[in-house]
Order: sequence, then C-alpha cells, then structure tokens
Amino acid sequence: MTVTDASPAVSAAELYFQIQQFYAHQMQLLDDGRAEDWALTFTEDGVFAANAHPEPAAGRAVISAAARKATDEYAANGVQRRHWLGMVSVEQRGEDEVFARCYALVIETPRGGQAALRVSTRCDDRLVRQDGRWLVKHRQVTRDDLS
Amino acid sequence: MTVTDASPAVSAAELYFQIQQFYAHQMQLLDDGRAEDWALTFTEDGVFAANAHPEPAAGRAVISAAARKATDEYAANGVQRRHWLGMVSVEQRGEDEVFARCYALVIETPRGGQAALRVSTRCDDRLVRQDGRWLVKHRQVTRDDLS
Amino acid sequence: MTVTDASPAVSAAELYFQIQQFYAHQMQLLDDGRAEDWALTFTEDGVFAANAHPEPAAGRAVISAAARKATDEYAANGVQRRHWLGMVSVEQRGEDEVFARCYALVIETPRGGQAALRVSTRCDDRLVRQDGRWLVKHRQVTRDDLS
Repeated sequence: MTVTDASPAVSAAELYFQIQQFYAHQMQLLDDGRAEDWALTFTEDGVFAANAHPEPAAGRAVISAAARKATDEYAANGVQRRHWLGMVSVEQRGEDEVFARCYALVIETPRGGQAALRVSTRCDDRLVRQDGRWLVKHRQVTRDDLS
Repeated sequence: MTVTDASPAVSAAELYFQIQQFYAHQMQLLDDGRAEDWALTFTEDGVFAANAHPEPAAGRAVISAAARKATDEYAANGVQRRHWLGMVSVEQRGEDEVFARCYALVIETPRGGQAALRVSTRCDDRLVRQDGRWLVKHRQVTRDDLS
Repeated sequence: MTVTDASPAVSAAELYFQIQQFYAHQMQLLDDGRAEDWALTFTEDGVFAANAHPEPAAGRAVISAAARKATDEYAANGVQRRHWLGMVSVEQRGEDEVFARCYALVIETPRGGQAALRVSTRCDDRLVRQDGRWLVKHRQVTRDDLS
C-alpha cells in the first residue's frame, strides 16, 4: 500500500489505525517481558532518548540490553508494568515516515498489591516504514516530573 | 458489509473502528448501571471468565445477574465506576470473528471523594458478529495483582 | 470531503479518526498552556459547561480567559496537567455535526513529584464542522465526584 495511491480521507484514517496498532503491539511486547522482540520495533539504528536518562540508548542492541535489564528487575520484584499510550496525534512526513506525539502513563501492580500510577510522560516519535512495517527511528520520552 | 468486499487496507481500519466503538458503548452501558443492556453485548452463550472469580459466568442470564448485583452495590455505596480500555489490538479470525486484546483499568470515584485507580487488568476477547452487531463470545480478564 | 459521498463503512471510520485527532490536538494545546489556541477549538459562540462550575462559560473570549487563568495558576505552581480522553463514542447528527461522548481523566504531576489522578469525568460534546475543521459547539463535563 502506498498512501498516495489512496484518497486522502481514507489514507489518514488508515495511517492512524496502523500507528495505533503498532503502539498496542509494541507496548504489549514490553509489558509481557519480551525485551528483545520489543527492541525489534526500533530501526537497527533507532534511538531511545529520555529526560530521565543521562544518555540516549542508540541502536537496537543497546535498546534491547537496557530493556532486558529493566524487565528482569520488574520480574524479580513481582511487578507487572503496563504502558498506556493515549491522545495520539499523527502527522505524515513522507510516504514512509510519520511524526507521532502521544501521552504515556506507566501503571505498576505488585503481585498481591495495589495498582498505581507511576509516571506521566509525553512521547515524541519519528516512525519509519521498512518492508511494510512501522518502526521507531527516534523516540523522545519526557517525564512530566522532570521537565 | 463484508470485510472481504473492501480493500484490505480500508477494512482493517474499519474493523478497528467498529471494535473501538463497540468497547466504548459496552463500557458506557456498564458504568451507567445498565447491567441488563450490558449483558446483551455478550452472545446468548457468552462467557465472562476472570482470574478474580472461581468460576466463569456462562450465558447472558448469569452475566446479567452478576452485573446487576455488582452495579447495585456500587450504586448503594455512591461509587461511580469507569472502565477504561486501551492499547487495543485486533486480529481478524474470519469474516465475522476477531480476537482482540486490550488493557483495562477500573477507576472509582466515591461521591464527594477522590478518584482512584482500583485495578489494572488485561482483557482477551473473542468477538463475533451476529446480525451486523459485534458481541463478546468469550472474555478473559486477568487482574495484574492476581497473575 | 462530504461524508455522504463516501461509502458508509469508510466514512464512519474516517469520522472517528477525525474526532480522535481533534481531541488529541485539543488536549495537547491545553496541556501545553496554549490557552488562547485551545479556545479557538470552540466555536465563536461555544459553551463550556461543567457541574463543577456555577455558570457555563459562553463564547470564545470567556472560555479563553478562564483557561488562561487556570493555565497560569498551574504553571506558577509547577504542575503539569494531562487531560486523557478515552472510550470515545461518536454519533453523526448531520453532515457537519456529531455528538461525541467520552470519559476524561486529569492527571497532574508536580515538578519533582509524583503523578496522580486528580479527577474522573464524563464529557458530552456537540461538535460542528466549520470550514473543514471540527470545533466544540457545546461541551458538558460531569465530574464523577460531584454527580
């Protein structure tokens, strides 16, 4: 599918649907502890930057290792994380690139304990389509408490 | 409408829209205390299973009675519930069947009191289309604190 | 684009997409402190009514001034607000008018502090399309704790 082949009205809704599905799938992978599969939702040279981290994680290998470490710590502590993305806006920047902005919440529930809102953030993503799949080229997460 | 009649790109977005609208409507019915109408969003032989319950509720009559009981208790206590579904992923399993996975939060607000996050869950739904309407054939709710 | 020109299946998904994007954009404006730009998402004679306020705010000028006042107070206190809308249902009422109902949460994070759920609400909107842009003609916000 090329977006320019479709009527503008249809393609905007279709693109929005694709990005929403991408986010749902991506967050389910992370929250299921599949750190390596989650890292594959970034481009090979993808960047994960956050105002909570001194340096951006650059490249799938680094992103994967960081996610694995965090995932194992949560599992060891018996805490289920849930990443909620919402208020997603999508701007097309080319046939295979979009800029997406959304809000993200992290909800944590300890086994046998009370679910709690951990952090509120804003997420700015540059997404690119490679071989028909959307991937994160650059993600900037801004925690509200640190901004 | 049959999904196979439309182009694949359009039908995926359309299907996603239909499921999102179904969930919005279904949760509004429950949170408005319309337990019997909510039960009608399940098939006649629909099943509601949850890791918080010892046995699944099977069939509309059972689902309706359980929802009525819970609804009346919340109303008697002056508590407004809100079920939030998000991070919805939809997989088509046939022309009239989809598997949908989402996260679900329950937010509770006592009259004159403070809104609070009560539980965080994952919801796995088998949805079927009957007479043009989507219905829940089987729902599995997994509370994060009990999993 | 006129909705009636498109097939019903396509137009419903497209309309839903447009409303979702409108809400994402509208809430980002408010949470970014752009009170005047946010007020422009209401019609010139738009009304913002809330069960938390003794009188509705009627007209863009009044809505803008009220939003500016609140925005400045939050900024002075170093608090980042995030308005989350979800469970959106959309009913078309005419070619250029829809009734939308959704849930809305306000999440607040003080600088250096803990994110918290402030209020849970229901939002009933009458939206109209003017010059191709959706605008709020009438909004009714019902706080769960006051209802």
